Amino acid sequence: MTHHLTRFIGVVPPLCTPMTTDFEVDIPSLERLIAFQLENGVHGLFVLGSSGEAAFLTDKQRATVIEVTVRNVAGQVPVLAGVIDMTTAQVLEHARLAKQAGVDALVVTAPFYTRISQAEIIEHFRILHHAVNIPLFAYDIPAAVHTKITRETMRTLADEHLICGIKDSSGDEANFRSLAMDMGPRNDIQVFTGSELLVDAALLMGANGCVPGLGNVDPAGYVRLYEAARSGDWQRARQEQERLYRLFEIVSVGTHRMGIGSSAMGAFKAALYLRGIIQTYITGRPSILLNKDEITRIRHIMQAAELLGA
Amino acid sequence: MTHHLTRFIGVVPPLCTPMTTDFEVDIPSLERLIAFQLENGVHGLFVLGSSGEAAFLTDKQRATVIEVTVRNVAGQVPVLAGVIDMTTAQVLEHARLAKQAGVDALVVTAPFYTRISQAEIIEHFRILHHAVNIPLFAYDIPAAVHTKITRETMRTLADEHLICGIKDSSGDEANFRSLAMDMGPRNDIQVFTGSELLVDAALLMGANGCVPGLGNVDPAGYVRLYEAARSGDWQRARQEQERLYRLFEIVSVGTHRMGIGSSAMGAFKAALYLRGIIQTYITGRPSILLNKDEITRIRHIMQAAELLGA
Amino acid sequence: MTHHLTRFIGVVPPLCTPMTTDFEVDIPSLERLIAFQLENGVHGLFVLGSSGEAAFLTDKQRATVIEVTVRNVAGQVPVLAGVIDMTTAQVLEHARLAKQAGVDALVVTAPFYTRISQAEIIEHFRILHHAVNIPLFAYDIPAAVHTKITRETMRTLADEHLICGIKDSSGDEANFRSLAMDMGPRNDIQVFTGSELLVDAALLMGANGCVPGLGNVDPAGYVRLYEAARSGDWQRARQEQERLYRLFEIVSVGTHRMGIGSSAMGAFKAALYLRGIIQTYITGRPSILLNKDEITRIRHIMQAAELLGA
Amino acid sequence: MTHHLTRFIGVVPPLCTPMTTDFEVDIPSLERLIAFQLENGVHGLFVLGSSGEAAFLTDKQRATVIEVTVRNVAGQVPVLAGVIDMTTAQVLEHARLAKQAGVDALVVTAPFYTRISQAEIIEHFRILHHAVNIPLFAYDIPAAVHTKITRETMRTLADEHLICGIKDSSGDEANFRSLAMDMGPRNDIQVFTGSELLVDAALLMGANGCVPGLGNVDPAGYVRLYEAARSGDWQRARQEQERLYRLFEIVSVGTHRMGIGSSAMGAFKAALYLRGIIQTYITGRPSILLNKDEITRIRHIMQAAELLGA
Repeated sequence: MTHHLTRFIGVVPPLCTPMTTDFEVDIPSLERLIAFQLENGVHGLFVLGSSGEAAFLTDKQRATVIEVTVRNVAGQVPVLAGVIDMTTAQVLEHARLAKQAGVDALVVTAPFYTRISQAEIIEHFRILHHAVNIPLFAYDIPAAVHTKITRETMRTLADEHLICGIKDSSGDEANFRSLAMDMGPRNDIQVFTGSELLVDAALLMGANGCVPGLGNVDPAGYVRLYEAARSGDWQRARQEQERLYRLFEIVSVGTHRMGIGSSAMGAFKAALYLRGIIQTYITGRPSILLNKDEITRIRHIMQAAELLGA
Repeated sequence: MTHHLTRFIGVVPPLCTPMTTDFEVDIPSLERLIAFQLENGVHGLFVLGSSGEAAFLTDKQRATVIEVTVRNVAGQVPVLAGVIDMTTAQVLEHARLAKQAGVDALVVTAPFYTRISQAEIIEHFRILHHAVNIPLFAYDIPAAVHTKITRETMRTLADEHLICGIKDSSGDEANFRSLAMDMGPRNDIQVFTGSELLVDAALLMGANGCVPGLGNVDPAGYVRLYEAARSGDWQRARQEQERLYRLFEIVSVGTHRMGIGSSAMGAFKAALYLRGIIQTYITGRPSILLNKDEITRIRHIMQAAELLGA
Repeated sequence: MTHHLTRFIGVVPPLCTPMTTDFEVDIPSLERLIAFQLENGVHGLFVLGSSGEAAFLTDKQRATVIEVTVRNVAGQVPVLAGVIDMTTAQVLEHARLAKQAGVDALVVTAPFYTRISQAEIIEHFRILHHAVNIPLFAYDIPAAVHTKITRETMRTLADEHLICGIKDSSGDEANFRSLAMDMGPRNDIQVFTGSELLVDAALLMGANGCVPGLGNVDPAGYVRLYEAARSGDWQRARQEQERLYRLFEIVSVGTHRMGIGSSAMGAFKAALYLRGIIQTYITGRPSILLNKDEITRIRHIMQAAELLGA
Repeated sequence: MTHHLTRFIGVVPPLCTPMTTDFEVDIPSLERLIAFQLENGVHGLFVLGSSGEAAFLTDKQRATVIEVTVRNVAGQVPVLAGVIDMTTAQVLEHARLAKQAGVDALVVTAPFYTRISQAEIIEHFRILHHAVNIPLFAYDIPAAVHTKITRETMRTLADEHLICGIKDSSGDEANFRSLAMDMGPRNDIQVFTGSELLVDAALLMGANGCVPGLGNVDPAGYVRLYEAARSGDWQRARQEQERLYRLFEIVSVGTHRMGIGSSAMGAFKAALYLRGIIQTYITGRPSILLNKDEITRIRHIMQAAELLGA
């Protein structure tokens, strides 16, 4: 791993959005979550990503999340904001508001709902870059948007200086390695992995950082993993990652009754609730909520991973 | 085909959204398009669907489309409006505005971006139904939202009286037949096909109507097809459908350079432009626009389908 | 529907392969099944297709099925044989044996297991056509082989005179219509649908015949449906098809415990067993077998479809 | 990485099958390829896998490959053989012949062509294990067979002592890690990765070995990579892997004209031809063959990867 002058590096959890029983943003819980992350040494925060349930928030709620985060982080680490929406007109609106609110970078997916070509993905980034002068990350998440941002497209985005980084949540690690190899020799593009179960491997391949949803629950674990890898202690990195893998089993407690999205978001929130950081484990509608038995299973998994006392 | 007392029946084209060179709604063109549809005898209009490029419009632009359509249609036929967005909170906002603006029914897809279960799709419709008291169509379009609304879910939506109709754009005609067979004996659910190349077959199977994107370009053709089927003249219905199939080839003129979405939307708009109804064939960003050669090919296909003089 | 001079037309069920408790071909049952089909007026028989469990038979067993069928049919109707295997070398071996055994045509899928291009599919047919001089059907079944034979490829196969027909089991009826429209004006290519729930619609679109798996169980129903369509009585065709659709529910009785393949093949065989035509409802290994409760459900569905007395 | 007493460990290339211009097995070339592999220190050989074009060979040709390999290897390293076929009856035939010919283990995929459940995959292994008493590897390759062997199924196969190892070619590294973590504590199951671009990462995660198609071309590179990882020198392992990644670009030289399968197999063979080991770069029919320009590109990529002199 080479050192970079960029501020975008290291462990950057995609922050959950705590909710009240009215499905509004729970601001005190969000403030505690931000403080919890900073105390545990994360290197940045990413709000309004998939784990932040951006897909479940109104425009007004998105603005609240950004405002609260920028104010509470107060420049201690960079704040990245997702601008997740279907196409350029809508993303532009989110992007302008997020920039105005003071975030440090935006995270942009391929357009979705419509079926789009790679040429149009590039056009999307061109329009955004020229209209909103702020660092952009290209966010490859085909499980959500159902189009891959290819290696060739990533090269074009880099060569045209449209992006400052990549967040790869594709689950395609061979392609991730190609991105790390392509971008490694240049110093202007940071490559982050969203594969929260393979962070040690990603760092070995040259990743500049990680964006682990599970980092909401155990930021200290990911920071230890990152530091172990930075120091070349790959066995320690692996052991930490394996502990986190076992902890990750919380995400599937509800999958017999609900989508994996609801189960995973519910589990992250339930774990934060059990750790005393947020007030409820409510997820955005129409998600089904976890029940008591499922919460009990989460508690047991957390105890086994040494995150909760018995 | 049985007769129904519902107003929701027949040919209901999913209206294109004409745009200015600034990517704003071209209101005079939209008004001409509405008049053109009504003159040609369509039985309803569906705005802000996939063909209406709802995915490409800002909230303000969506409001404009609805306002202009409701005002111009003036009750002559029902107006259906799509409320396409990722999850319940956002769809609720669209739904309330659309209802207030006076549309007759809303068209609702499964949630997208997030991975959702059938139970959560049902919950989505329950929340919408109870919050916004207006007829709802369930819109099955897995190519856009990447989740199917299953036959069992449709039955539940019907049995709980959450919907008044189904718009099937799944391309799965065997499943469509099951919907037509399930809903046929009851009189409270209308089943529409979005398979614009199989309308004769869908009507044979018991469809109550169709929502053909190509109906923007040739509403009279679809009305003739519908009337032929209603009168039991299936050979005439088939011949009309085959002519429309050949006309449909306009949608692929651009697919070597752009996504099928941009090519198809561009083609519908170009055909309306060539017929003198709308002002530009601009599509929403980041779509690539059709070029002169591609427009020429569209012109030739339209001439062969007897829609334009030589 | 135009009349053709070809022998390949009408209802051509893909014959099940009855098995003994040792998983060998049950020859007496197969002979009764063939007689049952011929008595009910089918226009041809297709052995060793997907419904014939070709994927579950050894080469020796395939040879037995062909030998028994050719001998029992004795020229009364054409016999088509599947030559289902991964690539050209293996298919060539099956093809030579089948031709030698006296079948009238071969049914050929795209190569599978390997990932193949359309150009290589065409090459596959070229090699087969030139090596084995016998009529070939192109069999489009992406659910099994995971590659589609595209409309363009079908045109090439027809233009190079490599095929005499198409069996479409793609479930993509819009594409089926394009095949029917492309091949309709020429008299040398017959287009068959494998969509057993949409035969009326396919015939309306110009299909020359059908290859319904369910035709094993109720050949008379499909013959009535075909004759109704030929005489232009589309409402009667539709009613027969709807009855057959309800009968088709037998295929899903086991899907909570096994793959859809095993459930469907088991159901066809169980229905033939209940009709007294074959001896067991054993399916090829490693298929799970239907249990008594599931057989009881099949019996009830058959009674409702008027195939069995109460 | 823990040490195991098993013979199944380390670098086990999936041997290409050299062909003559008549598409027969080129025995002298195969013998040279085996000698080349052994000289370069591989720990085992896997014949008749996907890279061995098992899908393109007749039964007789498969027998030849096994016979030549067992004879030439003469017990120096273990020989694994693929028994790739659609379902149990056919796989059993291959398995019996391969065992009789003296291979050390068989490599078994999920059934394909038919749609199969996990319970039926388990049943498949049970039947094979009980009928043919020889070590079995479960081969997860959804890109070819279109069904995944799940983590739960792998656990069942291990717990019932049906398998001695896993070959994972799924491309799903998070799932691979779960297999490595599940099987790591027990000493009776070896976990091999087929992800030839991620061998360093797989070894970090606990893989016992690798089965790299590219190992045909550069066995010494994979042996160096494996030894570096074993000695804990992860930076050297990474550098070797990155060189091999760049070499892997040979596989895509033909993808504009043919399927990825033909392009990759053709490239491996062309590289072996350029190294003077095999006689032709012919691939099985209906594969399209690489042309001179594509061979020239392969030569340049090999030179850049220091495998050929300029």
